[in-house]
Amino acid sequence: MSEFLVIPRADHDNLIANAYQARGFTPEEAALGAKLAAEAARHGIRTHHGLKALHLDHLFGSAAGGCVPGAEIEVIPSRFAASERWNANKKLGQAVAYQAIDRAIELAEEFGIGQVAVDNAFHYLWGGGYMIEAAQRGYYAYTNCTAALAEVVPFGGKFPTLGTNPHSWGIPSTDAVGFPIVIDWATSTVAMGRVQSLAREGKSLPEGAAVDADGNPTTDPNKVSALLPFGAHKGYGLSLINEIFGGFIGGSLPTLRSRKDKAPADEKTTPVFYFQVIHPEALSGGNFAKGRSQKDNLRAVLDDILDHGNDNCILPGQFEAQARRKSDEAGGLLFTAAEVAEFNEIARELGLQEWDAASLPAV
Amino acid sequence: MSEFLVIPRADHDNLIANAYQARGFTPEEAALGAKLAAEAARHGIRTHHGLKALHLDHLFGSAAGGCVPGAEIEVIPSRFAASERWNANKKLGQAVAYQAIDRAIELAEEFGIGQVAVDNAFHYLWGGGYMIEAAQRGYYAYTNCTAALAEVVPFGGKFPTLGTNPHSWGIPSTDAVGFPIVIDWATSTVAMGRVQSLAREGKSLPEGAAVDADGNPTTDPNKVSALLPFGAHKGYGLSLINEIFGGFIGGSLPTLRSRKDKAPADEKTTPVFYFQVIHPEALSGGNFAKGRSQKDNLRAVLDDILDHGNDNCILPGQFEAQARRKSDEAGGLLFTAAEVAEFNEIARELGLQEWDAASLPAV
Repeated sequence: MSEFLVIPRADHDNLIANAYQARGFTPEEAALGAKLAAEAARHGIRTHHGLKALHLDHLFGSAAGGCVPGAEIEVIPSRFAASERWNANKKLGQAVAYQAIDRAIELAEEFGIGQVAVDNAFHYLWGGGYMIEAAQRGYYAYTNCTAALAEVVPFGGKFPTLGTNPHSWGIPSTDAVGFPIVIDWATSTVAMGRVQSLAREGKSLPEGAAVDADGNPTTDPNKVSALLPFGAHKGYGLSLINEIFGGFIGGSLPTLRSRKDKAPADEKTTPVFYFQVIHPEALSGGNFAKGRSQKDNLRAVLDDILDHGNDNCILPGQFEAQARRKSDEAGGLLFTAAEVAEFNEIARELGLQEWDAASLPAV
Repeated sequence: MSEFLVIPRADHDNLIANAYQARGFTPEEAALGAKLAAEAARHGIRTHHGLKALHLDHLFGSAAGGCVPGAEIEVIPSRFAASERWNANKKLGQAVAYQAIDRAIELAEEFGIGQVAVDNAFHYLWGGGYMIEAAQRGYYAYTNCTAALAEVVPFGGKFPTLGTNPHSWGIPSTDAVGFPIVIDWATSTVAMGRVQSLAREGKSLPEGAAVDADGNPTTDPNKVSALLPFGAHKGYGLSLINEIFGGFIGGSLPTLRSRKDKAPADEKTTPVFYFQVIHPEALSGGNFAKGRSQKDNLRAVLDDILDHGNDNCILPGQFEAQARRKSDEAGGLLFTAAEVAEFNEIARELGLQEWDAASLPAV
């Protein structure tokens, strides 16, 4: 078990918000960028916390024209009362996504279900974070987005034309099982970051996860040129759904996404998001066995699934909930010494005081 | 390539409708039961056509108390304008599902998105059929249901507590690619019917598809006691979603579903359905590259995915569309001689004229 250093959340948020503001983002954008980064760290999502957020912005975002600090969301008029469509004008993804969840919740409160489709977006980083937010507030939520780069080969194909296209669902299950169930994954078998870490460790990939430059299957992480969808045609279908939402909302060709240098001037290179929120009461038939309440019925269903010798099973979101508890008990966000060193580099560049690893509490 | 006999659709529908009416179903229920059976055969869905429909009704339906001929749908009052919740009172699943799609389309026309949650349902047989119906009419549609029996072991577990829990999506893509994209599959790696057919053929199952009575992995179809989710934790999460909708809507314990003999009198044993329809215009940001229309943009996205050497890839729904074209060109529904013999048994029982296999056209 590796050791983690405990960073007070206010210190973390201050550093991330400062970094965003130094790049021209507004205080509100910077605060929401820091919020998602903190929640990712708090829930043990080591691949999508503040270091990744700032790196992503550097690679594809404010430094590359993919994200525009201070941009305003434009709500496009719609004749459909339970639906909104937004032009994000490349505003910081996290700021847009938190607002979209707020709005979709308002729509679900009124109509039982609500949706917000977002065109001209910038990557929102960690879909699960918004789902946890909605689920904690008592709503069923779903989001998908078109991932930044086309790195995944369609089932039966040779060339990567699909994003890792994640789907994320949040379930208001805290009353039933103690935490929000969060189902949150990419539609590729593994992420490109996992390939790189296996290469570093000299390990092989699982079968069916990737192809080499000729489009042939490989388990050698050093030969990986592109990824494969999980579950063959089934994961391929799920990945297509994100591209189909992209096509309907206003995304352009998947192979040009985030590749402004390759794209003709009249093609778009921005990703899209889609958010949907459902009010659980809008689903209730009001007739639960043994006179149970809706949440007691959900608990009974989940208890049955994990009973009968299945006590080793976990529910999706359980690891995130455990990480969160550990973090909250430690009184701050948990980072490795190497991560703290990277944060300190950022602090140095900003002229802020560095964190003193030697004096930080460890867990 | 096996040979198929061509049955005129009217003859098929007449037989199936007669069979349903002989079991007490109303003419309207019988007609919708025949419609879905015909559409399944027409789209090449050999596992869910009329023979399966009548067999399912026999095993779990009108003969077993799981389905009540002539039952009336009760619309439960709701404060949410874009949402309906129905008590199906065990009405024939196909009749309920076609009505739910009609109603969800009306809601999507008004609100951009609409949902219908159905409690006390009877199995609707083939989710993809309703999705094709909605997609042909120009809408994005989604459905899930809790499958009749708990046959699938949760990821990491030993005992089957989940249904094969299918998800089905329909995409209004006929203008873009010539047919509706339909993504439609169970969340188990294979279906139980496939296990039985592999056992008959003396073949092995793929790895990771099933477990034996002790909960250990097996590829021997004769030792299979339960199925595994596709894609490990990812398919497990997708299967859980159906049970979670079940829990919210009014389904009871998964291991008691369709097992009235095992269930205490105060537990429910009925499945649930969930339908959602989205109007594509409600998603459109109205700003497509190169001045494309929304459908042209969808076509450009799909063309890009299948370009770059990926011309061997197929789109989900393509096989169904090919089967449909073949069927329509033949001027009827295509069945094997063995299937025709089974239909003739049903005709004999009903006192109807049998089909004369020798004089039927073949393709």
